[in-house]
Amino acid sequence: MIMTGRRRRRGGKDAVAGRRSGVPPKVVALGGGHGLSASLAALRRITGDLTAVVTVADDGGSSGRLRAEMGVLPPGDLRKALAALCGDDEWGQTWSRVLQHRFVSGGDLHGHAVGNLLIVALWEQLKDEVAALEWVGRLLGAHGRVLPMSAVPLDLEAIVRGHDPKLPDTVSTVRGQATVALTPGEVQEVHLVPADPPAVPEAVQAVMDADWVVLGPGSWFSSVIPHLLVPELADAVAQTRARRVLTLNLAPQPGETEGFSPQRHLEVLGRHAPKLTIDVVLADEAAVPDRDSLEQAAQKLGATVELARVAAPDGPRHDPESLAAAYDRIFRMRGRIGPWR
Amino acid sequence: MIMTGRRRRRGGKDAVAGRRSGVPPKVVALGGGHGLSASLAALRRITGDLTAVVTVADDGGSSGRLRAEMGVLPPGDLRKALAALCGDDEWGQTWSRVLQHRFVSGGDLHGHAVGNLLIVALWEQLKDEVAALEWVGRLLGAHGRVLPMSAVPLDLEAIVRGHDPKLPDTVSTVRGQATVALTPGEVQEVHLVPADPPAVPEAVQAVMDADWVVLGPGSWFSSVIPHLLVPELADAVAQTRARRVLTLNLAPQPGETEGFSPQRHLEVLGRHAPKLTIDVVLADEAAVPDRDSLEQAAQKLGATVELARVAAPDGPRHDPESLAAAYDRIFRMRGRIGPWR
Repeated sequence: MIMTGRRRRRGGKDAVAGRRSGVPPKVVALGGGHGLSASLAALRRITGDLTAVVTVADDGGSSGRLRAEMGVLPPGDLRKALAALCGDDEWGQTWSRVLQHRFVSGGDLHGHAVGNLLIVALWEQLKDEVAALEWVGRLLGAHGRVLPMSAVPLDLEAIVRGHDPKLPDTVSTVRGQATVALTPGEVQEVHLVPADPPAVPEAVQAVMDADWVVLGPGSWFSSVIPHLLVPELADAVAQTRARRVLTLNLAPQPGETEGFSPQRHLEVLGRHAPKLTIDVVLADEAAVPDRDSLEQAAQKLGATVELARVAAPDGPRHDPESLAAAYDRIFRMRGRIGPWR
Repeated sequence: MIMTGRRRRRGGKDAVAGRRSGVPPKVVALGGGHGLSASLAALRRITGDLTAVVTVADDGGSSGRLRAEMGVLPPGDLRKALAALCGDDEWGQTWSRVLQHRFVSGGDLHGHAVGNLLIVALWEQLKDEVAALEWVGRLLGAHGRVLPMSAVPLDLEAIVRGHDPKLPDTVSTVRGQATVALTPGEVQEVHLVPADPPAVPEAVQAVMDADWVVLGPGSWFSSVIPHLLVPELADAVAQTRARRVLTLNLAPQPGETEGFSPQRHLEVLGRHAPKLTIDVVLADEAAVPDRDSLEQAAQKLGATVELARVAAPDGPRHDPESLAAAYDRIFRMRGRIGPWR
């Protein structure tokens, strides 16, 4: 095993010794929604040092109603990430089920997820977004930390061609993540409102301290790209000594990325984050019809392509075990300690 | 120390030995609302074996909206009892504050207590009222158990003279605890709808197994008397070998018991529970203008009167320390083990 000077400078003797004796890699996963849950369900299997950095631009459903009514961050994606990290014992499993429970009624509470309400209450009581999420994490016995990417509620705005199907060539601005996600038009670009939101310092620090930063899978424009539009976070992802893996979706998403090829996903990401380089693009082998084009697009980001079987047998979702195995292989083969550096 | 035959039959050798070596008395407190919280705040100081049996007839506020919208038990009094028992450490204190947190907004959630929503979610997830409350108790590190008196949501109905101030002599039936509590008329009698609700078996068992059953303080018609209108629970309170202490309020309650003397409180209670006997009536010495009349009324229930200073210096509420000291003295002086039996 070869120690690079860079490694030594960074972690010192103890970190190297620690790594040698089996300290888990520090992994930061950026995302939101179901994609991030899939990512966390896999990553928790292979590291004990896991941080999720979660988008806060949702304006739909229970989260959208809460941010409108209470002026808080949308809690839904944070809740889902926490639930994906919940403990395996009866305690963690039960509280996770309760936090994921959604009221069904003919009244005011219909559709609200209980965990969203609990997170908002903790925010109001503790007046500290990050500490409140730590409390929920402790309740769930969470295998990792969950941070919002910004402490300011954000809006997603998209430049869309043909948002109105009757005007297929007209380019218009569409506001709101829920609306963007379902646009029948072609999303060309997204940005955040406000355009220059502050990042949560703990999220920036986690990225800077990481061994691996994981982007994707997830709704491309509403869960994967937004992090790269928060300037301090984009800088951290660009500057960190961590390696970066980008995991592609198993299929284009109706609405957001209808008809997008895998390589188009990379091109779109690169356009939104000009400073970003990626080390590894991970894709399911069955989801890549044209490997050469994907490799060319990956190369423009500085990345090589890893293909693996990571889809579940029963539908277009990632299998946690297979995805974990793929990450584990990548982290071992492509980590900083090894013959590749 | 003299062992009575009754004690020996009941607990066997181990129970006697256990009591000797400092096993805490088994105490069951019946009630609801702030009165029960005061009772629990005191009792938790002097016993580690404490069960609260809580009324489920509330139809006002957050609880009333939840039972109407979701068809569940009103959770508010249960939540308050759990909060009164919460652990002293940062964990218990923080979760208690969160569960007691009430949303303030211009929207749908305004006025809802977070703990109410959490309890309802647990009920829906676990489909077991008692187990769900145990989970909340574990979350709070509660120093005791909280049980609903019935697993069926109940309504309180009152026969009131002069409910309509324009017809001061007209007797009418008033439905709903929230309305009864605020009636400007004179409550003559209350009953439950349905009239014959099943008791929660664990509550009956707790009463039967208790060393002491504590009734009051609290809203007389809406928190203290309702338990005695649940037939199985009234039977248990009548039949248990436990001793019974009834703690009077510090002042008549505007609405419910406007102008009621301490002895009138006892008369009213006795009318609603003909089989009931009481061992000790505890009252604050400053709240008893006519000790003789109170003693006569207590005697009709089989009780003697204990006067003590149990009011807080800053207002008409019970001081937990003083009330605890009074209960402790009563439990020691008037318990089954001692020269009195």
